[in-house]
Amino acid sequence: MPTSPQLLIFDVNETLLDTKAVTTAINKEIGNDEAADKWFQSLLHYSLVETVTGDFADFSKIADACLEMTANNYGKDLTPKTRETILSEFKKLSPHTDVSEGLQRLKNAGFILVALSNGTLEAVNEQLKSAGISQLFDRIFSIQSVGKFKPHPSTYAYVLDKMEISSDKAVMIAAHPWDLVGAARAGLQTAFIKRSGKSNYPLSPQNEFVAEDLIQFSDQLIH
Amino acid sequence: MPTSPQLLIFDVNETLLDTKAVTTAINKEIGNDEAADKWFQSLLHYSLVETVTGDFADFSKIADACLEMTANNYGKDLTPKTRETILSEFKKLSPHTDVSEGLQRLKNAGFILVALSNGTLEAVNEQLKSAGISQLFDRIFSIQSVGKFKPHPSTYAYVLDKMEISSDKAVMIAAHPWDLVGAARAGLQTAFIKRSGKSNYPLSPQNEFVAEDLIQFSDQLIH
Repeated sequence: MPTSPQLLIFDVNETLLDTKAVTTAINKEIGNDEAADKWFQSLLHYSLVETVTGDFADFSKIADACLEMTANNYGKDLTPKTRETILSEFKKLSPHTDVSEGLQRLKNAGFILVALSNGTLEAVNEQLKSAGISQLFDRIFSIQSVGKFKPHPSTYAYVLDKMEISSDKAVMIAAHPWDLVGAARAGLQTAFIKRSGKSNYPLSPQNEFVAEDLIQFSDQLIH
Repeated sequence: MPTSPQLLIFDVNETLLDTKAVTTAINKEIGNDEAADKWFQSLLHYSLVETVTGDFADFSKIADACLEMTANNYGKDLTPKTRETILSEFKKLSPHTDVSEGLQRLKNAGFILVALSNGTLEAVNEQLKSAGISQLFDRIFSIQSVGKFKPHPSTYAYVLDKMEISSDKAVMIAAHPWDLVGAARAGLQTAFIKRSGKSNYPLSPQNEFVAEDLIQFSDQLIH
């Protein structure tokens, strides 16, 4: 039986916010329905390339570089202006339909809610504000303060340190198995939110919670 | 002017060996022309997820787990037997058409040739033997000996240490920008081989060599 959680740490892009607007824009410009998924996977990969080689660049800068590379891999050339227009969609994403109610329920039940994103602090603040959910969080974190991308253990340790809470009382909530692998290995409990097109990574440690959305997750957590 | 190189370190999959047989098998089973690319990107990402979280699993085991996950993301369920059959194609890949001649020219010119793969030592030995090019290498390395995946700096340092050569006298040769980013940051020279569908990562340090294939690369290196 896991320790009763107090702190809920939410991943942002895809977990809380629907990235469809970015996906649609990329697939349209590149002319392939899978291009955006490949771009996002390369973004996640290259963020860790930076981390394992001991370097760092803002997530938005890597996102832009990966978009240029992905387009080139398809034989397309996107101008800096086009890439900027596409990536600006990130700033005004809508939350998934279950998110506002799910977060409110968890907040009302007394949990401490924070966000932790690979994006810059400025970007994640702007995103959550634009999505109308920033007031539900006690604090908003970016891995920028750590200089290493999730799922590096330092990123989770940083949040636990700032919130003065032990790892076993925290739950990392994400639609990304790689994020939960890192959190679990850093001693946190994990909740996998099965957003469309996402499934579990078979080598993951077992998740304490698996839910279709945040409302189902809140039902599991609130007794 | 870079130091005149002595040691040439070759990446294996995609750089030397044509992975088309694996790609075709995956795309056919999953029923989407982009599925294999997405699987390979997730394999690269999850190998680094293992490395940054301080864990390790054989590349073949991660490849299998990512294949199961990728298929599930497309709503498909591949049996362990099907996945094994698909991934067994890796053992008998053909070299790209320029590879045998390119390697032979470089060997004749007096360079020391080694291979360095994220695959297990057993796998890479079997692959290069099956492809008929293993005899052209002075030594074959797997990152398995290091317990961290490329592009972690330890993987390149391990080869340099075993070959007793300084980083500035070595060239890493790959069709993957992420591999070259790591090698460059570890102090090696780099050669980007522009295989079909591959292009440069804009945040890469500049490559000393860029070539369409190994014959063009050998022309650049042999004066």
